Amino acid sequence: MASGKELCEGVEWRIRVVDGSSEVLVPPTGLARKVWLRTKGLISGLGMKVRMFLKQAWDMGANDPRKVIHCIKVGLALTIVSLVYFMRPLYDGVGGNAMWAIMTVVVVFEPTVGATLYKCLNRVCATCLAGFLAVGVHWIASQSGDRFEPFVVGASIFILASIATFSRFIPSVKSMFDYGAMIFILTFSIVAISGYRVDKLFDLAHQRISTIIIGTSLCILVIMLVCPIWSGQELHSLTVRNMDKLSDSLDGCVRQYFTNSNGEDDQKLQGYKCVLSSKASEESMANFARWEPSHGRFNFRHPWKQYLKIGASMRSCAYCIEALNSCINSENQAAESIKKHLSTSCLKVSSSSSSAIKELAESVKKMNKSPTIDLLVEEMNSALEELHNDLKSLSHLLNPSTTAENQISATGLVPFMEIIPMVTLASILIEISVRTEALVGSVEELVKESEMKDKIVAKEEKPEGTMKALQRV
Amino acid sequence: MASGKELCEGVEWRIRVVDGSSEVLVPPTGLARKVWLRTKGLISGLGMKVRMFLKQAWDMGANDPRKVIHCIKVGLALTIVSLVYFMRPLYDGVGGNAMWAIMTVVVVFEPTVGATLYKCLNRVCATCLAGFLAVGVHWIASQSGDRFEPFVVGASIFILASIATFSRFIPSVKSMFDYGAMIFILTFSIVAISGYRVDKLFDLAHQRISTIIIGTSLCILVIMLVCPIWSGQELHSLTVRNMDKLSDSLDGCVRQYFTNSNGEDDQKLQGYKCVLSSKASEESMANFARWEPSHGRFNFRHPWKQYLKIGASMRSCAYCIEALNSCINSENQAAESIKKHLSTSCLKVSSSSSSAIKELAESVKKMNKSPTIDLLVEEMNSALEELHNDLKSLSHLLNPSTTAENQISATGLVPFMEIIPMVTLASILIEISVRTEALVGSVEELVKESEMKDKIVAKEEKPEGTMKALQRV
Repeated sequence: MASGKELCEGVEWRIRVVDGSSEVLVPPTGLARKVWLRTKGLISGLGMKVRMFLKQAWDMGANDPRKVIHCIKVGLALTIVSLVYFMRPLYDGVGGNAMWAIMTVVVVFEPTVGATLYKCLNRVCATCLAGFLAVGVHWIASQSGDRFEPFVVGASIFILASIATFSRFIPSVKSMFDYGAMIFILTFSIVAISGYRVDKLFDLAHQRISTIIIGTSLCILVIMLVCPIWSGQELHSLTVRNMDKLSDSLDGCVRQYFTNSNGEDDQKLQGYKCVLSSKASEESMANFARWEPSHGRFNFRHPWKQYLKIGASMRSCAYCIEALNSCINSENQAAESIKKHLSTSCLKVSSSSSSAIKELAESVKKMNKSPTIDLLVEEMNSALEELHNDLKSLSHLLNPSTTAENQISATGLVPFMEIIPMVTLASILIEISVRTEALVGSVEELVKESEMKDKIVAKEEKPEGTMKALQRV
Repeated sequence: MASGKELCEGVEWRIRVVDGSSEVLVPPTGLARKVWLRTKGLISGLGMKVRMFLKQAWDMGANDPRKVIHCIKVGLALTIVSLVYFMRPLYDGVGGNAMWAIMTVVVVFEPTVGATLYKCLNRVCATCLAGFLAVGVHWIASQSGDRFEPFVVGASIFILASIATFSRFIPSVKSMFDYGAMIFILTFSIVAISGYRVDKLFDLAHQRISTIIIGTSLCILVIMLVCPIWSGQELHSLTVRNMDKLSDSLDGCVRQYFTNSNGEDDQKLQGYKCVLSSKASEESMANFARWEPSHGRFNFRHPWKQYLKIGASMRSCAYCIEALNSCINSENQAAESIKKHLSTSCLKVSSSSSSAIKELAESVKKMNKSPTIDLLVEEMNSALEELHNDLKSLSHLLNPSTTAENQISATGLVPFMEIIPMVTLASILIEISVRTEALVGSVEELVKESEMKDKIVAKEEKPEGTMKALQRV
């Protein structure tokens, strides 16, 4: 027994930890030791988690340095606004309410210019409107005598807060003034109630509005001058990127299927999934882009909504690619001879659709009608024609009565079930090319609308128009 | 000419306005009249818009009275918090900072319990943490002498604000503490900067925290006691509703195609589109549901994440229904004889898949494993088998060499191209049933996990467990 125990103690139990090192597992001998081991385990587990978390954060920062820049911008804006407190003259000007400037900066500062402008404008307008209304209500309340004053103020708060909250549910209000409605309720309540105590009501309202204007102006300056990120530009790039992804995964999937190669990058093949899941971000970006002034190649009234239509067209293509993928990965596989028979025309259809989409991406990128897109669509259509003919001749592989001239079928008939996956794949490909044509239509509409807006702007603002024309030369 | 003019003036030009009435169009005679007509037109146009807007708002309220209730709840909470100002003792207790209580109510009150709790807990924790840190930083700053104090405070604000802003980009932090990070920056900045001016720093921090606690407690009380809307319950109902829609549109599309009827409700057929677009709302609901205490049949740690998996499974079915729809509405239509040949088995597959999904909806609704689901899946599989056989026998319609026993083919061969749409439809239907089986799997997992959690809770909290058992009896 004793030697057995010795033997047991002689053996070391090692466990491999996630980070690659290995730890000795020691059999517990006493309570203190147990507690110690447990604590050690907990601490090392926690340390691991913290390390993982920090690594994740570091990777995120390294992948998108603009996020780091945004953080520095927030810090910068907040430090500048602190000057309002530090410097006497400013402090005396806006009173103890300089806090509102800080609050405004914290709440209003968003990563993109559009989102920040949306919040700034909403905040300023809602504060002014609510401030005036509250002063009016306060005046009415003060006329109604000391006893009824609280009731008048309370009732007005109840009614206006309820109505403003309700308006936030209405889609058209929500997309433009959601934040404004909240600020309206906030300012109205605070000013109306403060009116009951604070004598200098106008001062309060004036101070609040001026501090908010200080805060918002600072935010707008910092967000637009220090490495600005424009919602519109982001939406534009996202659309171009998604189109490229769509094109790559369409081409990649079909090519991989027919060449039986596994060399394709899996991330590339799954790219269409990004298209499927980017509806929400597209909508919010288009919403914010409306607030942005003319920037880069985009005018103030650039047709942002058209991007949503393009997004919907892309998604409808992506649904088909999803179906295509399921068809490719299904258990029932087509006979090799059939696959060979259709491979040339299927590859032609997919590669021509894919290059049409790629050309569209290029067209959106440069914001002009591509000179080759019509050619590419024609090519796609002739590839479709070819696929149609190949599909027709497929029947020769099944129906010996008309296969005299067909070489493949002479070697033997293929069971009907083995052509089904191929036929499905071909019809999904046909559907994809139909949807690609719809995508061509919506991109052309965007380019046309954008050129029209450009002309209107050029007419309205001659000098800028000339500048742009010069830039283009 | 004169009589012509008289004739012209005798004729009245009437225009029908959108609301059904008609207006006389009078030819303009003078500038004043023109301006008058234009103003009138503008006003009536504006009035129309306002009326449309009000009608839209009214419809929205009538369709979902809970939105109206939410608005009343916000008004109620705000009016109650005003009492803090109206009543002297409370006012003296929390000083001029009672405003914070109002602000908390306005900012924190969300339509669902989960969202409100998330914001409340984030706000309280972040305020406490930031308050303590700011007091600490203030102490260090005050030790460093009058000259360096602003720099220490400014640097600390810059660093902490940047870090906290960066943390908001990290997905795990964003989903749990996004609001908290913002409040942290806000409170830290205000308290740290106020420290430079206000002598009674501890008082400020204490007042702010106590007013915020007053505000949040009031919000939690009102949101949970007056007609509460639970995120978890909403997610649950959305999932059940979406499943029903999926089932209806699958069944409806295939039935409409084969019976050539247009009697199906179009809204019902398009139901799968709701499934496609509900990813974002599912995610936010699941996120908020985690914060909710045990309510209705849901325990605190109900497996909400599993709902997201079910949602993903439903969407993968919906993608196929989209492909199915495009196939049904495509230009190339199948030959009637082929359609007839496959109609029975296709209808069987679609209706069995559809009723399996409906049964799953029922199963999720009742949160127990359906006794009939295995049977339905079996039925679906036998329908699939039948469809397979029918597809196999399709070749008889094309290949006369083996069609001696087939009655339909005896009447004439069908061109190969005319069977393609039907074959595609059949393979998409097969894919849908495969995905339905995956959906069955994820629903079963949800039911299992939820039962497991129920058992754990029953063990942990004996009395409540017994109560629940009693309720179930």
